[in-house]
Amino acid sequence: MTKNTENENNITTMKALVFHGMNSIALEDKPKPKIIQTTDAIVRITTTSICGTDLHILKGDVPTVADGRILGHEGVGIIEETGTDVLGFHKGDKVLISLITSCGRCIFCKKGIYSHCSNGGWLLGNSIDGTQAEYIRIPFADNGLYLLSPDTDDEAVVLLSCNLPTSLECGTLNGQVKPGDIIAIVGAGPVGLSVLLTAQLYSPSEIIMIDLDNNRLEVARSFGATQIVNSSDGKAVERVMALTKDAGVDVAIEAVGLSATFDICQSIISIGGHIANVGVHGKPVELHLESLWSSNITITTRLVDGSTTPMLLKMVQSGHIDAKRLISHRFELSEIMKAYKAFGNAAEEHTLKVAIKNTSTIV
Amino acid sequence: MTKNTENENNITTMKALVFHGMNSIALEDKPKPKIIQTTDAIVRITTTSICGTDLHILKGDVPTVADGRILGHEGVGIIEETGTDVLGFHKGDKVLISLITSCGRCIFCKKGIYSHCSNGGWLLGNSIDGTQAEYIRIPFADNGLYLLSPDTDDEAVVLLSCNLPTSLECGTLNGQVKPGDIIAIVGAGPVGLSVLLTAQLYSPSEIIMIDLDNNRLEVARSFGATQIVNSSDGKAVERVMALTKDAGVDVAIEAVGLSATFDICQSIISIGGHIANVGVHGKPVELHLESLWSSNITITTRLVDGSTTPMLLKMVQSGHIDAKRLISHRFELSEIMKAYKAFGNAAEEHTLKVAIKNTSTIV
Amino acid sequence: MTKNTENENNITTMKALVFHGMNSIALEDKPKPKIIQTTDAIVRITTTSICGTDLHILKGDVPTVADGRILGHEGVGIIEETGTDVLGFHKGDKVLISLITSCGRCIFCKKGIYSHCSNGGWLLGNSIDGTQAEYIRIPFADNGLYLLSPDTDDEAVVLLSCNLPTSLECGTLNGQVKPGDIIAIVGAGPVGLSVLLTAQLYSPSEIIMIDLDNNRLEVARSFGATQIVNSSDGKAVERVMALTKDAGVDVAIEAVGLSATFDICQSIISIGGHIANVGVHGKPVELHLESLWSSNITITTRLVDGSTTPMLLKMVQSGHIDAKRLISHRFELSEIMKAYKAFGNAAEEHTLKVAIKNTSTIV
Amino acid sequence: MTKNTENENNITTMKALVFHGMNSIALEDKPKPKIIQTTDAIVRITTTSICGTDLHILKGDVPTVADGRILGHEGVGIIEETGTDVLGFHKGDKVLISLITSCGRCIFCKKGIYSHCSNGGWLLGNSIDGTQAEYIRIPFADNGLYLLSPDTDDEAVVLLSCNLPTSLECGTLNGQVKPGDIIAIVGAGPVGLSVLLTAQLYSPSEIIMIDLDNNRLEVARSFGATQIVNSSDGKAVERVMALTKDAGVDVAIEAVGLSATFDICQSIISIGGHIANVGVHGKPVELHLESLWSSNITITTRLVDGSTTPMLLKMVQSGHIDAKRLISHRFELSEIMKAYKAFGNAAEEHTLKVAIKNTSTIV
Repeated sequence: MTKNTENENNITTMKALVFHGMNSIALEDKPKPKIIQTTDAIVRITTTSICGTDLHILKGDVPTVADGRILGHEGVGIIEETGTDVLGFHKGDKVLISLITSCGRCIFCKKGIYSHCSNGGWLLGNSIDGTQAEYIRIPFADNGLYLLSPDTDDEAVVLLSCNLPTSLECGTLNGQVKPGDIIAIVGAGPVGLSVLLTAQLYSPSEIIMIDLDNNRLEVARSFGATQIVNSSDGKAVERVMALTKDAGVDVAIEAVGLSATFDICQSIISIGGHIANVGVHGKPVELHLESLWSSNITITTRLVDGSTTPMLLKMVQSGHIDAKRLISHRFELSEIMKAYKAFGNAAEEHTLKVAIKNTSTIV
Repeated sequence: MTKNTENENNITTMKALVFHGMNSIALEDKPKPKIIQTTDAIVRITTTSICGTDLHILKGDVPTVADGRILGHEGVGIIEETGTDVLGFHKGDKVLISLITSCGRCIFCKKGIYSHCSNGGWLLGNSIDGTQAEYIRIPFADNGLYLLSPDTDDEAVVLLSCNLPTSLECGTLNGQVKPGDIIAIVGAGPVGLSVLLTAQLYSPSEIIMIDLDNNRLEVARSFGATQIVNSSDGKAVERVMALTKDAGVDVAIEAVGLSATFDICQSIISIGGHIANVGVHGKPVELHLESLWSSNITITTRLVDGSTTPMLLKMVQSGHIDAKRLISHRFELSEIMKAYKAFGNAAEEHTLKVAIKNTSTIV
Repeated sequence: MTKNTENENNITTMKALVFHGMNSIALEDKPKPKIIQTTDAIVRITTTSICGTDLHILKGDVPTVADGRILGHEGVGIIEETGTDVLGFHKGDKVLISLITSCGRCIFCKKGIYSHCSNGGWLLGNSIDGTQAEYIRIPFADNGLYLLSPDTDDEAVVLLSCNLPTSLECGTLNGQVKPGDIIAIVGAGPVGLSVLLTAQLYSPSEIIMIDLDNNRLEVARSFGATQIVNSSDGKAVERVMALTKDAGVDVAIEAVGLSATFDICQSIISIGGHIANVGVHGKPVELHLESLWSSNITITTRLVDGSTTPMLLKMVQSGHIDAKRLISHRFELSEIMKAYKAFGNAAEEHTLKVAIKNTSTIV
Repeated sequence: MTKNTENENNITTMKALVFHGMNSIALEDKPKPKIIQTTDAIVRITTTSICGTDLHILKGDVPTVADGRILGHEGVGIIEETGTDVLGFHKGDKVLISLITSCGRCIFCKKGIYSHCSNGGWLLGNSIDGTQAEYIRIPFADNGLYLLSPDTDDEAVVLLSCNLPTSLECGTLNGQVKPGDIIAIVGAGPVGLSVLLTAQLYSPSEIIMIDLDNNRLEVARSFGATQIVNSSDGKAVERVMALTKDAGVDVAIEAVGLSATFDICQSIISIGGHIANVGVHGKPVELHLESLWSSNITITTRLVDGSTTPMLLKMVQSGHIDAKRLISHRFELSEIMKAYKAFGNAAEEHTLKVAIKNTSTIV
């Protein structure tokens, strides 16, 4: 009876994917979030996704994620409510959510290193509740949301929350890919494939994709790789050196996070080349300074800042990047446990990225 | 009698410091070099020096140096003769010799990576005869010499052959030192001290010098270091972090070439910082990507290209850099064996760099 | 009687320099400002100054300044009160006020072009009340104030509100001054002299100062100019070309705002050189593309963004810049009309910059 | 009889297009060129073209071109002979000729400003004989030629002598075109269309082409322009501002060389934007500093250096640029007078670029 009199504004619970310690997640009822700071916005999620980092959380690799946390840092939605100090957004606006929360005021924000914002950073689905839910609270909404036109296809842009800016910033831009370069991307997972998509904005003449999985290598070829190398026989370095007439590659992008893949990058980099690390590493790697000290190379690391999201939105809108082709599987929010399974068994199910739709709350 | 009829052009032998395998060098008579290519010049050396790399050669670490090679890659002198295709120099010109030979035509020269010139690179005192002699043949003379005014003090510029450009290019420039930066230099030897001199061209607000030798640290202080840290107690990292209020340094410059000193750099680098490797490494180092993957850092390596020598000459001439203060000991060419001893026992003799004068051939 | 019961917080009026149309200003009682937005702060001014732009306002050249406006955009003070959304400042903090108001959220702020902030820009003493008063309201306080240590000398930093960042950003940085450059600065007023101070952070080998006023040229020499040229005889170009052996200068910085001074820059710029315009121009200039089209030059314009203020604070603190030496005259706020007179008659009174102290409100 | 015994090496005359003062050119017999310097090469031309600059020469606008000069600075050919100091080329090599002669040794070459080489620059078809002939002597051959594979299609690369590097260096690179930019190109002639081709290497989201000629605008559309604007009604600025919602364009590229077209660029440039001048100007232009002084803009000029030719060759080979589509008309060298006519009446004959084949000397 009380239910009948409830309108949209009175809904107080919502569905959300909640973390409960290693390998334990569940779709549960949680209180709908509320404005806390005057700079907050509440967004009704329409589409979210699952990131490789979410799988790391499940494995217990990310100690900042507490029991009870709603996971997820990717999402498209509709503004439900804004704090009194939000200047750029209004109820009803369609928005893309950046994985990075940034205050726009601290020393790191002023340098564009939003990932290390003194008042933010990667918080969503980590130290505060995330996007795998019907609603989310976005702190510093003016700096964490991007306006979309009402007719934007959610799937065309949802990977601009994390996947595409990660690959562009940590891989393509840090690697300084430029026209005419020969580049190698080690790892053809969703991030490596996104590097492949974003690198093409700068017209390298050769893109060599290296992976253990032939299916993903074929996807890479269809996405624009000019050469594919299956590294399972341990001869990837040999083959890349042959392809480059022993000069090596101008840019090597590590998109896995292992010692073995970082080693490939070290072994194929040309004089004056750039190694851009994108992968999340759990252990130290050996750096061959005994040979590289004199090679005039540059090695970079980076946590995605999300600073390129506006540019990526233009690239999607102008047709330069088709991010949607990375989405291989689609689910309802109510099926999110199945989505996690499909994403977790990527090799078997040929999963790239999943789109998770929240249709239950459409009014 | 024959001697009386000899004029300058008929001298056919000269004194030179010759390498004869591990730990074996001697001052010997060698044939005076002649023009081979039309782009060559013959230079009469007036001042040369000894580089840390020469000591590595003595230890047998540089296999490209054959028995019988004249060592040395630093020098000031007077043009004795030029090939028919040398455009910019004439007999009698006072010149600085660059350690790097570059053709000015190959793909690397066009990128400014002269150190990896397809037709040159570091040849002098390595794969061809060097500067620790009365005369030297300089290939591609137009690209390997710099004109000096006749009244230039040899000692003011002789370290611009190698030491200063090495420190500037591999350290200061690769580290992207800029006004307001806090920088740390690990290693207060001649190269580290040169980093200290060249870094000041870009006005860092703090320069922390780290070394094991208190004497060199005091020299560093007198050269402009704002903080000195003796790392012999293993607490250098701790102290640098305290000095920087746990933020770490904007730029860490490795000027030693050991795992331990590279480790210091990794441990003190700030978010968004630059590690510039200058040291020559003999072994791999451990790179802590398990923490650095998300630190937005840049690591660079480089073999000196000598591309900054023209700028450094202006800096010496305008008084911005006093390179001469690095010269602690002076010798005649006839005393070069004593010079090697002084340079080899740097800690005991408080040697920084040596100047070796060739006065015997002044006509 | 009511007066006796008033404490600091109850003061409701203050002294302020108010604009009343062309050539009409007066020191008047005005209401003390109050917090309007949650991101505002109220600052009690301890030191302010007068800018050349204030004289333009007096002449009626700046139509955005309305009758009744409190002038001034330079200042040091103490935080009196903060809005609830101010994160980085608290009552009692000593602060430097940036001339630029920036929201930290808009497309321009994300590019670092704070001067064109969609919600800010140059507002103080222009479209909102300024610093020539006992108190001021600072919008977006987190982005418009810089924390100072309590013992900071006001005069050492007050010119970092406007003068120093203007000269550094529009002149030195836009001109890309680098070690070894020959640079010319046209105009030895407070801004040109500040270019002279900030350019030295990048170690140019020659700094040629050009002006009509011998007194200011002598000041320039004492500030580090290596050559001074009085242009009153119309032969400045001739002399600069002689000084540069007809090569011209690497960087020419226009710090006046007239066609004649821009012409000097065009005439002395070298192949590949940079012309950085700092001056405020009232009329078009003639650009000699008939000769410059093939000269590989770069011309820049800029409204100061204030983005370099943190770096400049470090440069003052580390002793690299002594901004205080630009202050030639000192006044109390009660004497501000005299200060305007001294600043307006700069040539006669040998005025560079004035410091105006507000001591009346010290509690 | 002697003729019968002549073989290829004995040919001593050749056909060449010779300039004889204003509006006077003729195809004549000239002596076949010979090696003069040891760094020279003789190239047998297989394909050449005509540049807009050649038309300027005909009008008498280029005083450095003397009576009797063979014109032309674009060409593909086969090495016939090399001087003893040429390192990188051999008889029989297929080569692309750069319009720029550079010594690789002078201060400008070391900065990459080959166009102002102290021993070179634009000499071919200007102060020495050019490419519109059967043979040409190329000074500093190692720096003025690029190796082509024997099966290279001449027409695919001949415009990389001048047209493509001009548009890339002076337009696209100087304008700093980047992904997501809105750019405008003023002038849809061969150079403007080449800017259009090269700009796409950097993925701008919008390319607005402005011209008076509807035919060329349609060509522009087929080459990738996203918007075309016919400026003949004087409303180009209005239309561009409407297309950009009054923000203006990020990059405006002037590819005509007139005051009116430079004015369009000034009027449509956004805050922080770049104006890249490519056009050859005969008169000064008015620069609106009274409004632009505060717009944070950059204006650049440049004479093509040819430094990007290696990159452009890769872009042609990898299919990123189809330079051949700029060739609208084809002629034999014997028909070169007709080729000049077609190129001179471009609007009427819908000429873009012409290819002129030298088939007479194939052996």
